[in-house]
Amino acid sequence: MRITVCLTDNNRPEPWVEGLRAELPQAVVEAWTPGAAPADHAVVWAPPQQFLDEQHQLRGLFNIGAGVDALLGLRLPPRTRIVRLDDAGMSVQMAEYVCHALIRHFREFDVYEAEAREGAWSYRRPRVRGNFPVGIMGLGVLGQRVGRAIAQFEFPVRGWSRSPRQIDGIRCFHGEPGLAEFLAASRVLVCLLPLTDATRGILRRETLSRLNGGLPGGYLINVARGAHLVEDDLIPLLDSGQLAGATLDVFASEPLAPGHPFWRHPKITVTPHASARTQREESVAQIAAKIRALEAGADFETLPGVVDAQRGY
Amino acid sequence: MRITVCLTDNNRPEPWVEGLRAELPQAVVEAWTPGAAPADHAVVWAPPQQFLDEQHQLRGLFNIGAGVDALLGLRLPPRTRIVRLDDAGMSVQMAEYVCHALIRHFREFDVYEAEAREGAWSYRRPRVRGNFPVGIMGLGVLGQRVGRAIAQFEFPVRGWSRSPRQIDGIRCFHGEPGLAEFLAASRVLVCLLPLTDATRGILRRETLSRLNGGLPGGYLINVARGAHLVEDDLIPLLDSGQLAGATLDVFASEPLAPGHPFWRHPKITVTPHASARTQREESVAQIAAKIRALEAGADFETLPGVVDAQRGY
Repeated sequence: MRITVCLTDNNRPEPWVEGLRAELPQAVVEAWTPGAAPADHAVVWAPPQQFLDEQHQLRGLFNIGAGVDALLGLRLPPRTRIVRLDDAGMSVQMAEYVCHALIRHFREFDVYEAEAREGAWSYRRPRVRGNFPVGIMGLGVLGQRVGRAIAQFEFPVRGWSRSPRQIDGIRCFHGEPGLAEFLAASRVLVCLLPLTDATRGILRRETLSRLNGGLPGGYLINVARGAHLVEDDLIPLLDSGQLAGATLDVFASEPLAPGHPFWRHPKITVTPHASARTQREESVAQIAAKIRALEAGADFETLPGVVDAQRGY
Repeated sequence: MRITVCLTDNNRPEPWVEGLRAELPQAVVEAWTPGAAPADHAVVWAPPQQFLDEQHQLRGLFNIGAGVDALLGLRLPPRTRIVRLDDAGMSVQMAEYVCHALIRHFREFDVYEAEAREGAWSYRRPRVRGNFPVGIMGLGVLGQRVGRAIAQFEFPVRGWSRSPRQIDGIRCFHGEPGLAEFLAASRVLVCLLPLTDATRGILRRETLSRLNGGLPGGYLINVARGAHLVEDDLIPLLDSGQLAGATLDVFASEPLAPGHPFWRHPKITVTPHASARTQREESVAQIAAKIRALEAGADFETLPGVVDAQRGY
C-alpha cells in the first residue's frame, strides 16, 4: 500500500509522513513530488489539480481539516472518496473560541477592560441571559459540541441545518423555509456551516438584519469560512447599530490584507484563522485508523467523515 | 411576622422590600431605620453593629451574597442564624467569568487582539491543554459549578477544600497537608474560598510560587475576596515571570484606589467586583422560600446555606 502526503499553505509534510509511517508500518508513505508513483490513499490540504490528475488508483483522499471546500472545485479520480477529519481535537477548540467570544460580548468584558485601562471602577447593569439567544448555523460534530458548551452557560440555544435535526437542548430549524424564523429567534449568530454553493454569502445584509427579531443588537461570530459572509455588507450594519459587533476568524482572502477595514473597526474582533487548529497527532491517528479499516475491507459508507460530494460536506 | 431590610454599599433597599412583600403578603416588610421595631428575619448586606444590637428577637439573618465574611466580625443576637444565598444565579456567572479568563489566557486571545490592533496576521503555536491543569480552591456550590464548566473544555481539574471531598472529574486535595501538592499540580489557580481567619492571605509568595510544580507560568484568577491575596506579593511574582498573569475581580480595598499599580500592570486584568452579581428576583424568591419553611416549623439545619459561624462559611 502506498500513501502520499500533499500539503500547501505552510503545512510541512514531513511530520505527517513520519507519523503515518509509525502508525502504518506496512505502508510506503512519502511526501508527494510531481511524477511520483500513484498512491492508494492521500493525505492533503488544498492540493493542486496536477496532483489529483496523477492519482489513477486513489481510493481515500483524506483532508486534514473539517471543511473540504478547497477540494470540491477539483476533478477527482473516478473512484476516489473524500474523507474529512471528524473531530481530532477541533471541536473543543471551537467550543472554547465561541464561548470566549460570546461571554466576552454578553458580559461586556471588553468594555470593562477598556475602562480598567483608564483606571475606572465602573458599574454596568447586568444583562438578562434570556435576551441573548444564540443561534448556531450548522449542526454537525462542531455545531453540536458548541451548542452543548453554550447551553451549559444557560443561554437559550437555537440551531439551523439543511435537513431536520432533533438535538436535546437546542431548538432546531431547518432549510430555506426555517431560516427567517431561526434568524429572528437568535441574537448572537454563530456560523459553523460547510461552504457550499448553497451557503456562500449566506451572511449578508438581508439575513443579518433579521437577527434579534429585526431589532438592533445582534452579534455575529464567524468561524466557518470567509466566503459565508458578504464582507461589504458587514460594516454598514455595524455602523448603523443594527449589529452590535462581530468576531471573525475567517476572511474571504487570507491572510486578511494589511489595509482591510476589519482590522481596526471598533466593533470587530479579528483573529487569524486560529479558532481550531488541526492537531497533527490526533489527526494522524484518526486517518491511520480509517485506512486500516478500509484495507481490512470496510466500506467507505461505514466511516465517519466521508463526504457526499454532491451535497458538499 | 416582621422582616427588615438593611443594605449598604449602594444597594437600594426598596426593590428588596417590594419583592419580599409580594412573596410574603402576610409579613410586615420594611427597610430598617434606627429604632424601628425589632424583626423576626432580616435581609442584609454589611449591616452596622447598631442594627444587630437592636434585633432582640432576630432568627434568620439572610445575607444577599455568597460570602458572609462581613457578618462574622459582628456581635449577633443570641438565637440568630446566618443564612447565605446558595446560588440564585451566581454560579453560572462565576463559571462564565472563570472560563472567559481561563480560555483567554490559555488560547492567548489577549495577545491575538493586541496583534490585530497592529494589523498583524500572526501564527502562535497552540499550547497543550494537558499542560494547563486548573486548581480550584473552595469546592462549595460555586467551586463545583466552575469545575464542571472547566472540565467540559477538557482541562485537567484539581480541587482543594478544608475537608475531604469526592467529586467526579476533579482530583481533590484537602487541608493544610494537601495544599502544597495541590498547588504543585495546578498551573491556573482559581480562588473561590470563603474568607475566614484560616484563608486570609492564603494567596502569597510562598503559595503562589509553588504553582505549576514550582516552574514559571502559573496564572491566578481571584473571584473570592481581596483579602485572600497578599497584594504586595503579586507584582514581584509577575515581574520575575514566576507567574504569567492574573485576573482579579476583588481587592483588599474596593473600589480599587485610582493610583493602585494593579490597574495598569500589563499582566493583570482588573474587573470591578463584577464576576457574579446578586440577582435580586432570584434571591428574593430564594430567601422568601426559606422564611416560609422556617415559619412552617422547619429547623435551620434543614436549609441550604446556613452558616456555621465557628467555621466561617
